[in-house]
Amino acid sequence: MTAAWHTAVAKKPPLYCVAISAGHFTYKLIADSGEFGLNFMPATSAELVAALGGSKGSRLDKFPAFGIAKDNPLKTKVPILKDAYAAFGCKLVDDRHYSDHRLLIGEIVAVHYLEDAFMEDGSLSLEKVSPVLYMGSDKYLDLAGCKTRTIDRGLCAERLKAKP
Amino acid sequence: MTAAWHTAVAKKPPLYCVAISAGHFTYKLIADSGEFGLNFMPATSAELVAALGGSKGSRLDKFPAFGIAKDNPLKTKVPILKDAYAAFGCKLVDDRHYSDHRLLIGEIVAVHYLEDAFMEDGSLSLEKVSPVLYMGSDKYLDLAGCKTRTIDRGLCAERLKAKP
Repeated sequence: MTAAWHTAVAKKPPLYCVAISAGHFTYKLIADSGEFGLNFMPATSAELVAALGGSKGSRLDKFPAFGIAKDNPLKTKVPILKDAYAAFGCKLVDDRHYSDHRLLIGEIVAVHYLEDAFMEDGSLSLEKVSPVLYMGSDKYLDLAGCKTRTIDRGLCAERLKAKP
Repeated sequence: MTAAWHTAVAKKPPLYCVAISAGHFTYKLIADSGEFGLNFMPATSAELVAALGGSKGSRLDKFPAFGIAKDNPLKTKVPILKDAYAAFGCKLVDDRHYSDHRLLIGEIVAVHYLEDAFMEDGSLSLEKVSPVLYMGSDKYLDLAGCKTRTIDRGLCAERLKAKP
Protein backbone atom coordinates (compact mmCIF):
# COMPACT_ATOMS: atom_id res chain seq x y z
CA MET A 1 0.00 0.00 0.00
CA THR A 2 0.98 3.65 -0.28
CA ALA A 3 1.19 5.63 2.96
CA ALA A 4 1.23 9.41 3.13
CA TRP A 5 1.23 9.79 6.91
CA HIS A 6 4.50 8.76 8.52
CA THR A 7 7.41 10.20 10.48
CA ALA A 8 10.50 9.33 12.48
CA VAL A 9 9.76 9.09 16.22
CA ALA A 10 13.04 8.47 18.05
CA LYS A 11 16.77 7.95 17.60
CA LYS A 12 18.15 5.36 20.04
CA PRO A 13 16.74 2.87 19.34
CA PRO A 14 15.49 4.28 16.02
CA LEU A 15 11.70 4.24 15.76
CA TYR A 16 9.43 5.21 12.89
CA CYS A 17 5.64 5.42 12.77
CA VAL A 18 3.00 5.16 10.07
CA ALA A 19 -0.72 5.85 10.32
CA ILE A 20 -3.00 3.59 8.28
CA SER A 21 -6.64 2.67 8.29
CA ALA A 22 -7.43 -0.61 10.07
CA GLY A 23 -9.54 -1.48 7.02
CA HIS A 24 -6.45 -1.86 4.81
CA PHE A 25 -5.42 -5.39 3.84
CA THR A 26 -1.87 -4.33 4.76
CA TYR A 27 -2.94 -3.69 8.35
CA LYS A 28 -3.91 -7.33 8.80
CA LEU A 29 -0.55 -8.47 7.33
CA ILE A 30 1.35 -6.21 9.74
CA ALA A 31 -0.72 -7.13 12.81
CA ASP A 32 -0.29 -10.85 12.03
CA SER A 33 3.45 -10.76 11.26
CA GLY A 34 4.57 -8.08 13.75
CA GLU A 35 6.71 -6.52 11.01
CA PHE A 36 6.45 -3.87 8.34
CA GLY A 37 8.61 -2.36 5.61
CA LEU A 38 8.79 1.25 4.45
CA ASN A 39 10.07 1.99 0.96
CA PHE A 40 11.02 5.52 -0.07
CA MET A 41 10.54 5.83 -3.80
CA PRO A 42 12.06 8.09 -6.46
CA ALA A 43 9.88 10.40 -8.58
CA THR A 44 10.52 8.06 -11.52
CA SER A 45 8.24 5.61 -9.65
CA ALA A 46 5.47 8.16 -8.92
CA GLU A 47 3.02 6.31 -11.16
CA LEU A 48 3.66 3.03 -9.36
CA VAL A 49 3.21 4.83 -6.02
CA ALA A 50 -0.15 6.21 -7.22
CA ALA A 51 -1.22 2.81 -8.60
CA LEU A 52 -0.38 1.06 -5.31
CA GLY A 53 -2.56 3.62 -3.55
CA GLY A 54 -5.36 3.13 -6.09
CA SER A 55 -5.68 -0.66 -5.85
CA LYS A 56 -6.60 -3.14 -3.10
CA GLY A 57 -4.29 -5.89 -1.85
CA SER A 58 -7.33 -7.94 -0.83
CA ARG A 59 -8.32 -8.22 -4.51
CA LEU A 60 -4.99 -8.23 -6.30
CA ASP A 61 -1.45 -9.53 -5.73
CA LYS A 62 0.20 -6.22 -6.57
CA PHE A 63 3.75 -7.56 -7.01
CA PRO A 64 3.10 -9.56 -10.19
CA ALA A 65 0.24 -7.27 -11.31
CA PHE A 66 2.49 -4.20 -11.40
CA GLY A 67 5.73 -6.08 -12.10
CA ILE A 68 7.41 -4.87 -8.91
CA ALA A 69 10.98 -6.06 -8.40
CA LYS A 70 12.02 -6.97 -4.84
CA ASP A 71 15.31 -7.04 -2.97
CA ASN A 72 16.04 -9.51 -0.21
CA PRO A 73 15.11 -8.13 3.20
CA LEU A 74 17.59 -8.25 6.08
CA LYS A 75 16.43 -9.25 9.58
CA THR A 76 12.72 -9.24 8.62
CA LYS A 77 10.56 -10.85 5.95
CA VAL A 78 9.01 -7.58 4.74
CA PRO A 79 8.98 -6.58 1.06
CA ILE A 80 11.89 -4.35 0.07
CA LEU A 81 11.46 -2.71 -3.34
CA LYS A 82 14.40 -2.76 -5.74
CA ASP A 83 13.62 0.74 -7.00
CA ALA A 84 13.49 2.35 -3.53
CA TYR A 85 16.35 4.77 -2.83
CA ALA A 86 15.95 3.85 0.86
CA ALA A 87 13.90 1.30 2.78
CA PHE A 88 13.42 0.33 6.41
CA GLY A 89 12.67 -3.09 7.80
CA CYS A 90 10.73 -2.58 11.05
CA LYS A 91 9.61 -4.73 13.98
CA LEU A 92 6.25 -3.58 15.30
CA VAL A 93 6.68 -2.27 18.86
CA ASP A 94 3.27 -0.63 19.31
CA ASP A 95 -0.08 -0.52 17.51
CA ARG A 96 -2.57 2.05 18.77
CA HIS A 97 -6.05 2.96 17.76
CA TYR A 98 -6.62 6.70 17.27
CA SER A 99 -9.96 7.78 15.86
CA ASP A 100 -10.36 6.15 12.39
CA HIS A 101 -6.72 5.05 12.02
CA ARG A 102 -4.11 2.80 13.61
CA LEU A 103 -0.75 4.29 14.48
CA LEU A 104 1.95 1.66 14.02
CA ILE A 105 5.28 2.24 15.75
CA GLY A 106 8.18 0.19 14.46
CA GLU A 107 11.77 -0.23 15.50
CA ILE A 108 14.00 0.12 12.44
CA VAL A 109 16.08 -3.05 12.50
CA ALA A 110 17.41 -2.90 8.93
CA VAL A 111 18.18 -0.04 6.56
CA HIS A 112 18.58 -0.57 2.83
CA TYR A 113 19.79 2.36 0.77
CA LEU A 114 21.35 3.41 -2.48
CA GLU A 115 24.79 4.53 -1.35
CA ASP A 116 25.14 7.02 -4.21
CA ALA A 117 21.91 8.77 -3.25
CA PHE A 118 23.14 10.11 0.08
CA MET A 119 25.69 12.72 1.11
CA GLU A 120 28.30 12.21 3.79
CA ASP A 121 26.07 13.89 6.41
CA GLY A 122 23.31 11.38 5.68
CA SER A 123 21.01 13.76 3.81
CA LEU A 124 19.56 12.94 0.40
CA SER A 125 21.41 14.25 -2.64
CA LEU A 126 18.78 15.84 -4.89
CA GLU A 127 21.28 15.75 -7.72
CA LYS A 128 21.22 11.98 -7.56
CA VAL A 129 17.63 11.23 -6.56
CA SER A 130 14.43 13.18 -6.90
CA PRO A 131 12.11 11.74 -4.22
CA VAL A 132 8.35 11.27 -4.45
CA LEU A 133 6.91 14.24 -2.56
CA TYR A 134 3.18 13.88 -2.05
CA MET A 135 1.11 17.05 -1.72
CA GLY A 136 -2.30 15.46 -1.06
CA SER A 137 -5.31 15.17 -3.41
CA ASP A 138 -3.39 12.97 -5.90
CA LYS A 139 -0.81 15.73 -6.44
CA TYR A 140 2.94 15.19 -6.47
CA LEU A 141 5.68 17.79 -6.31
CA ASP A 142 7.86 17.42 -9.37
CA LEU A 143 11.26 18.89 -8.51
CA ALA A 144 12.18 19.13 -12.19
CA GLY A 145 10.47 22.44 -12.79
CA CYS A 146 9.10 22.69 -9.25
CA LYS A 147 5.54 22.09 -10.35
CA THR A 148 2.81 19.86 -9.06
CA ARG A 149 1.66 16.95 -11.15
CA THR A 150 -1.68 15.19 -10.71
CA ILE A 151 -1.80 11.39 -11.01
CA ASP A 152 -5.24 9.83 -10.59
CA ARG A 153 -4.52 6.77 -8.47
CA GLY A 154 -7.45 4.69 -9.71
CA LEU A 155 -6.86 5.38 -13.39
CA CYS A 156 -3.15 4.82 -12.93
CA ALA A 157 -3.74 1.42 -11.30
CA GLU A 158 -5.95 0.35 -14.22
CA ARG A 159 -3.40 1.58 -16.76
CA LEU A 160 -0.37 -0.09 -15.15
CA LYS A 161 -2.26 -3.36 -14.64
CA ALA A 162 -3.17 -3.41 -18.31
CA LYS A 163 0.48 -3.38 -19.36
CA PRO A 164 1.76 -6.68 -20.69
CA MET B 1 10.62 25.09 19.07
CA THR B 2 11.11 23.69 15.59
CA ALA B 3 9.88 20.16 14.97
CA ALA B 4 10.91 18.01 12.03
CA TRP B 5 9.06 14.82 12.99
CA HIS B 6 5.31 15.12 12.61
CA THR B 7 2.41 13.70 10.62
CA ALA B 8 -1.35 13.54 10.37
CA VAL B 9 -2.78 10.48 12.15
CA ALA B 10 -6.53 10.37 11.54
CA LYS B 11 -9.43 12.15 9.85
CA LYS B 12 -12.60 12.03 11.98
CA PRO B 13 -11.88 13.48 14.45
CA PRO B 14 -8.72 14.96 12.91
CA LEU B 15 -5.59 14.01 14.83
CA TYR B 16 -1.99 15.05 14.28
CA CYS B 17 1.17 13.89 16.06
CA VAL B 18 4.58 15.34 16.74
CA ALA B 19 7.65 13.62 18.23
CA ILE B 20 9.82 15.72 20.53
CA SER B 21 12.44 15.09 23.14
CA ALA B 22 11.11 15.20 26.72
CA GLY B 23 14.12 17.40 27.52
CA HIS B 24 12.69 20.29 25.47
CA PHE B 25 11.30 23.26 27.40
CA THR B 26 8.32 23.07 25.02
CA TYR B 27 7.49 19.56 26.25
CA LYS B 28 6.89 20.86 29.78
CA LEU B 29 4.64 23.64 28.46
CA ILE B 30 2.57 21.12 26.48
CA ALA B 31 2.34 18.55 29.28
CA ASP B 32 1.25 21.28 31.74
CA SER B 33 -1.29 22.99 29.47
CA GLY B 34 -2.64 19.95 27.59
CA GLU B 35 -2.46 21.94 24.36
CA PHE B 36 -0.06 22.56 21.51
CA GLY B 37 0.12 24.58 18.31
CA LEU B 38 1.69 23.65 14.98
CA ASN B 39 2.71 26.39 12.61
CA PHE B 40 3.58 25.63 8.97
CA MET B 41 5.99 28.27 7.76
CA PRO B 42 6.86 29.64 4.33
CA ALA B 43 10.41 29.43 2.94
CA THR B 44 10.71 33.20 3.49
CA SER B 45 10.79 32.30 7.22
CA ALA B 46 13.41 29.52 6.88
CA GLU B 47 15.95 31.51 8.88
CA LEU B 48 13.49 32.02 11.73
CA VAL B 49 12.68 28.28 11.64
CA ALA B 50 16.40 27.47 11.89
CA ALA B 51 16.93 30.03 14.68
CA LEU B 52 14.00 28.62 16.70
CA GLY B 53 15.63 25.20 16.39
CA GLY B 54 19.02 26.61 17.39
CA SER B 55 17.98 28.32 20.64
CA LYS B 56 16.51 27.17 23.97
CA GLY B 57 13.18 28.38 25.36
CA SER B 58 14.44 27.72 28.88
CA ARG B 59 17.04 30.46 28.40
CA LEU B 60 15.32 32.90 26.09
CA ASP B 61 11.81 34.25 25.50
CA LYS B 62 11.95 33.68 21.74
CA PHE B 63 8.93 35.81 20.80
CA PRO B 64 10.49 39.18 21.69
CA ALA B 65 14.05 37.97 20.99
CA PHE B 66 13.25 37.12 17.37
CA GLY B 67 10.46 39.67 16.93
CA ILE B 68 7.84 37.01 16.16
CA ALA B 69 4.35 38.34 15.42
CA LYS B 70 1.40 36.33 16.76
CA ASP B 71 -2.20 35.93 15.72
CA ASN B 72 -5.00 35.27 18.20
CA PRO B 73 -5.59 31.54 18.70
CA LEU B 74 -9.11 30.11 18.43
CA LYS B 75 -10.31 27.51 20.99
CA THR B 76 -6.84 27.11 22.59
CA LYS B 77 -4.25 29.41 24.11
CA VAL B 78 -1.37 28.17 21.94
CA PRO B 79 0.87 30.54 19.96
CA ILE B 80 -0.24 31.02 16.36
CA LEU B 81 2.38 32.72 14.18
CA LYS B 82 1.27 35.56 11.91
CA ASP B 83 3.63 34.44 9.14
CA ALA B 84 2.43 30.81 9.07
CA TYR B 85 0.53 29.85 5.91
CA ALA B 86 -1.34 27.31 8.03
CA ALA B 87 -1.51 26.52 11.75
CA PHE B 88 -3.31 24.00 13.95
CA GLY B 89 -4.49 24.49 17.51
CA CYS B 90 -4.46 21.06 19.17
CA LYS B 91 -5.76 19.54 22.40
CA LEU B 92 -3.43 16.84 23.68
CA VAL B 93 -5.20 13.47 23.58
CA ASP B 94 -2.21 11.20 24.21
CA ASP B 95 1.41 11.52 25.27
CA ARG B 96 3.56 8.39 24.96
CA HIS B 97 7.15 7.63 25.71
CA TYR B 98 9.00 5.87 22.89
CA SER B 99 12.74 5.37 23.29
CA ASP B 100 14.34 8.85 23.66
CA HIS B 101 11.29 10.86 22.52
CA ARG B 102 7.68 11.61 23.46
CA LEU B 103 5.02 11.17 20.82
CA LEU B 104 2.29 13.75 21.35
CA ILE B 105 -1.08 13.10 19.73
CA GLY B 106 -3.35 16.11 19.43
CA GLU B 107 -6.88 16.63 18.22
CA ILE B 108 -6.96 19.54 15.78
CA VAL B 109 -9.63 21.82 17.25
CA ALA B 110 -8.80 24.96 15.26
CA VAL B 111 -7.28 25.55 11.83
CA HIS B 112 -5.83 28.91 10.82
CA TYR B 113 -4.82 29.34 7.20
CA LEU B 114 -4.08 31.84 4.51
CA GLU B 115 -7.05 31.41 2.20
CA ASP B 116 -5.06 32.47 -0.87
CA ALA B 117 -2.43 29.78 -0.27
CA PHE B 118 -4.73 26.81 -0.88
CA MET B 119 -6.49 25.41 -3.93
CA GLU B 120 -10.13 24.36 -4.01
CA ASP B 121 -9.20 20.72 -3.32
CA GLY B 122 -7.38 21.77 -0.13
CA SER B 123 -3.84 21.27 -1.44
CA LEU B 124 -1.19 23.96 -1.15
CA SER B 125 -0.67 26.24 -4.15
CA LEU B 126 3.08 26.37 -4.76
CA GLU B 127 2.54 29.42 -6.93
CA LYS B 128 1.33 31.27 -3.86
CA VAL B 129 3.44 29.78 -1.09
CA SER B 130 6.79 28.02 -1.07
CA PRO B 131 6.79 25.95 2.14
CA VAL B 132 9.75 25.22 4.39
CA LEU B 133 10.85 21.71 3.41
CA TYR B 134 13.44 20.35 5.81
CA MET B 135 15.90 17.77 4.48
CA GLY B 136 17.78 17.04 7.75
CA SER B 137 21.31 18.13 8.73
CA ASP B 138 20.39 21.85 8.67
CA LYS B 139 19.47 21.59 4.98
CA TYR B 140 16.33 23.06 3.45
CA LEU B 141 14.87 22.41 0.03
CA ASP B 142 14.59 25.71 -1.80
CA LEU B 143 11.89 25.30 -4.45
CA ALA B 144 13.14 28.37 -6.30
CA GLY B 145 15.83 26.55 -8.25
CA CYS B 146 15.18 23.19 -6.56
CA LYS B 147 18.40 23.29 -4.62
CA THR B 148 19.22 22.59 -1.01
CA ARG B 149 20.34 25.44 1.19
CA THR B 150 22.20 24.98 4.46
CA ILE B 151 21.29 27.21 7.41
CA ASP B 152 23.34 26.65 10.57
CA ARG B 153 20.71 26.81 13.31
CA GLY B 154 23.05 28.00 16.07
CA LEU B 155 24.70 30.73 14.01
CA CYS B 156 21.34 31.80 12.66
CA ALA B 157 19.90 32.13 16.19
CA GLU B 158 22.84 34.33 17.22
CA ARG B 159 22.52 36.47 14.10
CA LEU B 160 18.76 37.01 14.37
CA LYS B 161 18.98 37.77 18.10
CA ALA B 162 21.59 40.42 17.42
CA LYS B 163 19.24 42.34 15.10
CA PRO B 164 17.90 45.56 16.60
